[in-house]
Amino acid sequence: MDETIGPLTAFRPDVVFALLYGCGRETMPLPDVMKELHFDDLEQGRKFQSEAFSVPAKEIIEFAEKFDPQKFHLNAKSAERSIFKGLVASGWHTAAITMRLFIRKLNFAEGAIGLGVDELRWPNAVRPGDVLHVETEILETRESKSKPDHGIIRLRNTTRNQRGEVVQTMTANALVPRRRGGRVAAD
Amino acid sequence: MDETIGPLTAFRPDVVFALLYGCGRETMPLPDVMKELHFDDLEQGRKFQSEAFSVPAKEIIEFAEKFDPQKFHLNAKSAERSIFKGLVASGWHTAAITMRLFIRKLNFAEGAIGLGVDELRWPNAVRPGDVLHVETEILETRESKSKPDHGIIRLRNTTRNQRGEVVQTMTANALVPRRRGGRVAAD
Repeated sequence: MDETIGPLTAFRPDVVFALLYGCGRETMPLPDVMKELHFDDLEQGRKFQSEAFSVPAKEIIEFAEKFDPQKFHLNAKSAERSIFKGLVASGWHTAAITMRLFIRKLNFAEGAIGLGVDELRWPNAVRPGDVLHVETEILETRESKSKPDHGIIRLRNTTRNQRGEVVQTMTANALVPRRRGGRVAAD
Repeated sequence: MDETIGPLTAFRPDVVFALLYGCGRETMPLPDVMKELHFDDLEQGRKFQSEAFSVPAKEIIEFAEKFDPQKFHLNAKSAERSIFKGLVASGWHTAAITMRLFIRKLNFAEGAIGLGVDELRWPNAVRPGDVLHVETEILETRESKSKPDHGIIRLRNTTRNQRGEVVQTMTANALVPRRRGGRVAAD
């Protein structure tokens, strides 16, 4: 354990998160705690929590230069004079990071195909160094009529920062493959 | 004019788009046709059409490696064996490209702050070389009660490919600044 995290040090959940999960890593290792998931492994009410990811200022700016070139996403100095009083990530960057944390956690066999998203909201801004994680809840599962080897899941993803503040919520439907031969208990 | 585009050549709207708008450019020049927009310049029913952008395979793969590492977004060979029968862009990549085309077209003074998105849908996949543009319609405008120097617009963004097929739809609310001193006719 890093000696800066001791009983005499003020509790800093962001520092603890960063130490536990790897602050500012460019790529995250695939967790080996979750085997490949199929539709048959999921049921309504099941919950998952992703690993965490610290958002570097550099990545906020790179994403904005490419996809959302607005001053509060591009430059710390000019962002100070904006409504946000500092650099913040594009909401689409938060959405993309959420996808990465979600898909790496649930690790669907053959992948999950997004059918659509409802109520995508960004109630709090993401700032440089924020450590995000995603909480997923399965809201509903149903078989696909048109693709009998797939099922449809409806899920809610809630993305939180190191203080537990919600930075994004969304509800989505996704098409995921069924296990050949039917249900097998997930590990 | 490229000599392959002549009267004896089959009409290829994708090629025409690419020649007109710059196929595969890494960055697009800011159009100088639109001055900075304020809330006061917008009214219900006003429509805009963005410039076009051709999506390179390389960019599809780069985005997927970073944010949506699923085989149908990562690798043309393994994507052939997927439900898509070939490489397709992540829906979140399509959303990010849409943001870029939208924000560069509308060019809001001081920026536009996304308050939330409803009914984000991807009815057709985006494939390498597809040339996308965004059609924006202002659905509603209203003053902000909490921020009197801003207004709220509700808008619909429809993203189409070179064949006119819809690849993304969404409805969004955004907070945009008012012009100091009230309405001035937009150019």
